[in-house]
Amino acid sequence: MQKPKKGLLIILSGPSGVGKGVVCKALMERNPNLKLSVSATTRSKRPGEIDGVSYFFKTDEEFKRMIVNDEFLEYTSVYGSNYYGTPRAYVEEELAAGHDIILEIDVHGANQVKKCCPFAIAVFLAPPSMSALKSRLIGRGTEEPEVVERRFGEALYELRQAEKYDYIVVNDVLDKAVTAVEHIISAEHMRVFRRLDFVEDLEGGSKKQ
Amino acid sequence: MQKPKKGLLIILSGPSGVGKGVVCKALMERNPNLKLSVSATTRSKRPGEIDGVSYFFKTDEEFKRMIVNDEFLEYTSVYGSNYYGTPRAYVEEELAAGHDIILEIDVHGANQVKKCCPFAIAVFLAPPSMSALKSRLIGRGTEEPEVVERRFGEALYELRQAEKYDYIVVNDVLDKAVTAVEHIISAEHMRVFRRLDFVEDLEGGSKKQ
Repeated sequence: MQKPKKGLLIILSGPSGVGKGVVCKALMERNPNLKLSVSATTRSKRPGEIDGVSYFFKTDEEFKRMIVNDEFLEYTSVYGSNYYGTPRAYVEEELAAGHDIILEIDVHGANQVKKCCPFAIAVFLAPPSMSALKSRLIGRGTEEPEVVERRFGEALYELRQAEKYDYIVVNDVLDKAVTAVEHIISAEHMRVFRRLDFVEDLEGGSKKQ
Repeated sequence: MQKPKKGLLIILSGPSGVGKGVVCKALMERNPNLKLSVSATTRSKRPGEIDGVSYFFKTDEEFKRMIVNDEFLEYTSVYGSNYYGTPRAYVEEELAAGHDIILEIDVHGANQVKKCCPFAIAVFLAPPSMSALKSRLIGRGTEEPEVVERRFGEALYELRQAEKYDYIVVNDVLDKAVTAVEHIISAEHMRVFRRLDFVEDLEGGSKKQ
């Protein structure tokens, strides 16, 4: 009998503006078996948001206690006000249940997760070109030019982190990028160190022939 | 400008009777860009076979000179009569031209290639069960029962080599097995160490923005 398979922890990251959210959303829609990691946050719940689905909503005190107790795979404070983090327990439970989990996080968070979970599969989403990335940053239309410039500078720093990842997927055409991530997940399930149980079971089975 | 990509060397191997040939044939039909490595042999050319397509036909003397000159990635002598081998030059030229090459070889050959080409991607084709493998060995209908037993014993030894491979693909349903190998090839092209050129080019491109 085969032992239950452990799920994969997949980090989906890349520079600001590359389209992580859009790729992740399409990936979840096409693969109902994939689980999206639910973050914890100290920011207020907005209308329509559900605790445990949109986020795990925490008070400042709760969040800080979780930090002290090492209950996060990664966390960050945005502009020094609200905290965001990936709760370790939720991820570990889902993996143990055999579910593949996607973490859609920024490059700093990805570095933290890769340190504490070296078994995580880190996918770096890259823009097809720097001009395409700049267009996307401008295209949001919500930022002042100096903010766009600052973000673009950060994106260059973030691009240099790519070599720490396992895979690079170019987000040119959405459908192709999503398919690429699907192929990576499919292939990773066939990695030999994840399938040795299967071979052992086969060998065991030979005694019954 | 992007540098031309180097092709992948993919080893497709597994125990006798697992269906390597059938999977390989379907893979080639579905992926015209894949190249199948052409073996060299000392056996006589049969009607319809073409030198350089079916095999590179060699005399005993030619083959032995190639062995001495280290011109094979792997070679073997079948029942001490005919030699078969994978010529290094052909594979290296195709890889340099950016073509992905498939080597369909037995487990001994795969071990040899993995030693001389650690960058090769080794895919182990496994039977869904030992009874399925035995049925396939018997199903050929061309062998005496004692030959089937010997082959089955060898298959057990060959199964134990699986852990030296990079991936395990179960050949239960042909179409699924072929798709699995396609996903592995697709994912391997996205491995970060094969795409660092792309990121360097992106960074270079940023200076022109």
